[in-house]
Amino acid sequence: MSKTSRVFQLARRPDGAPVADDFKLAEVPLPPLEAGQVKVRNRWLSVDPYMRLSLTTLKGVHAPTEIGGELDGGAVGEVVESRSDRLPVGAHVFSPLKGWRDLYVADAGQVAPVDADLGPLSAYLGVLGLSGMTAYAGLEFVLQPKAGETIFVSGAAGAVGMVVCQLAKRRGCRVIGSTGDPAKARLLGELGVEATINYRTDDLRARLRAFAPDGIDMYFDNVGGSHLEAAIDSMKIFGRLALCGAVELYNSGNYRQGPGNLFAAIEKGLTLTGFNIGLFAARRGEMMADLAGMLKSGELRVEETIVDGLENTAKAFIDLLAGANTGKMVIRV
Amino acid sequence: MSKTSRVFQLARRPDGAPVADDFKLAEVPLPPLEAGQVKVRNRWLSVDPYMRLSLTTLKGVHAPTEIGGELDGGAVGEVVESRSDRLPVGAHVFSPLKGWRDLYVADAGQVAPVDADLGPLSAYLGVLGLSGMTAYAGLEFVLQPKAGETIFVSGAAGAVGMVVCQLAKRRGCRVIGSTGDPAKARLLGELGVEATINYRTDDLRARLRAFAPDGIDMYFDNVGGSHLEAAIDSMKIFGRLALCGAVELYNSGNYRQGPGNLFAAIEKGLTLTGFNIGLFAARRGEMMADLAGMLKSGELRVEETIVDGLENTAKAFIDLLAGANTGKMVIRV
Repeated sequence: MSKTSRVFQLARRPDGAPVADDFKLAEVPLPPLEAGQVKVRNRWLSVDPYMRLSLTTLKGVHAPTEIGGELDGGAVGEVVESRSDRLPVGAHVFSPLKGWRDLYVADAGQVAPVDADLGPLSAYLGVLGLSGMTAYAGLEFVLQPKAGETIFVSGAAGAVGMVVCQLAKRRGCRVIGSTGDPAKARLLGELGVEATINYRTDDLRARLRAFAPDGIDMYFDNVGGSHLEAAIDSMKIFGRLALCGAVELYNSGNYRQGPGNLFAAIEKGLTLTGFNIGLFAARRGEMMADLAGMLKSGELRVEETIVDGLENTAKAFIDLLAGANTGKMVIRV
Repeated sequence: MSKTSRVFQLARRPDGAPVADDFKLAEVPLPPLEAGQVKVRNRWLSVDPYMRLSLTTLKGVHAPTEIGGELDGGAVGEVVESRSDRLPVGAHVFSPLKGWRDLYVADAGQVAPVDADLGPLSAYLGVLGLSGMTAYAGLEFVLQPKAGETIFVSGAAGAVGMVVCQLAKRRGCRVIGSTGDPAKARLLGELGVEATINYRTDDLRARLRAFAPDGIDMYFDNVGGSHLEAAIDSMKIFGRLALCGAVELYNSGNYRQGPGNLFAAIEKGLTLTGFNIGLFAARRGEMMADLAGMLKSGELRVEETIVDGLENTAKAFIDLLAGANTGKMVIRV
């Protein structure tokens, strides 16, 4: 039984977009199991845009990772050693923190059993995990769409955005999605998305005006920055915006900055609601049941970008921030 | 019967805080009355912070006033000549645009009769006018307070803020108000405001933390800028913010800029709702009835800062932006 873990540490603080040398894959000793603890071998690791936040020194919910500190993130693994009655060897568990490594020791209460019958293990990092529930909470609880409304989804081909688009279609909405890649745009079209905008080549405001001359009713923001500003300028009176992420700003030095045109909210009566999935923990059961049902019935299409090998986790994260993923990016350890 | 009007024009575009030489009081010819028109002699003029917006070149609802163009704003006056059956000589009328002057000619349909029985004429520029209804809509329709909640009101001793404070007290809220003057703070105390913050001398965040250690439930924003940022940092989870104005930014060169810490909305699930009274025109009757009732019963205390003389309108506006008013600032022509 392995007594060490391979885990990514922060080698230095990224300046702008992270590069490989900002990370270091180290081998660290694993403590012996105490009563009530389990040892878990990770099978799937998650990389998500929010992970960029703790690489900064800005204060916020995501406290700065220290130089030399271990990175954290979501992971699904298998119990390989157990001193807990609750979690026998062979059980599959999710940890929101013990990603970026192959093995870890944790109290049984710090991990959550996952039901492999509901979906593949990797889905617990995606559609049945934080990404899927984030999409669900933002659309169903925050935006509360009505049939016939038009929604703009930024990062529409990402892990969250792709679920938002499908949930919005289920509610009878007209969906406009932004993405940086024609292949992703075609995929969105297959999901029923009525219009796509290539944010690398198109003028966001002009395209939004072309697709929604009367303005958009809702905006689901995964990107922030210039996307948020274009959306604000394109909203109808009393439009609703769900603020979920701001990946465009994460490499900028100040991801906390608001848009340059917030005054338009006063002029148009806009409502901007920020949220994160932690705020909706009490509704987890409800969200999971609906998402798992859609997954089982085939109503919800899942896309994954799979990267093989623990050692490629940092590269996957770097690529994710540059938009290389379609749907959920996961690492198969 | 006078054939000319004295009206303020924009002499040059203010650079930062407006000064007297940015304005020019000109004498201009009045056109002869056509059928359906009235000539109105203004009795009371309004100066309001939003008037700063059309002195900029920034695009928005408040389109730039051209150099040499006449300023506009609210006014209450008396019909002195009439070719309209609807509005006889002697009728009192409100115009949202024909302020900053002593006399004007307008179509009868462009002015609104006011009922001098509901309150004094000047009240139609304040508590029974845009200020009062703005306060009402923001508190009652946007924030929807519940008894026991804590609200922070910036610009609490201003025309809008003072009404917000009293409406919030009526709803059983705990009120924290910011103002720049100890005398205004005392006045707010007389209105039942539990705590005041002097934004010129106090640390906003520290005082908010002292008065509301668990955070504030609601924020009514008349000020924007550093006030909005301090409020965002002081909100409870799921806190609600009504964005009404941003007077702190109006002299800054970009009043449209959002706060530097908007990401906290994602972290705490905050809802920011912008609004202006034009969006709630359909509910005018309801608002007026409630406000006029409170005014008649004495439940609503009204403060006015009265400046005498048309020629002092620009100075009054300049002083308003520097915070010289208590309650509604009006010019008695």
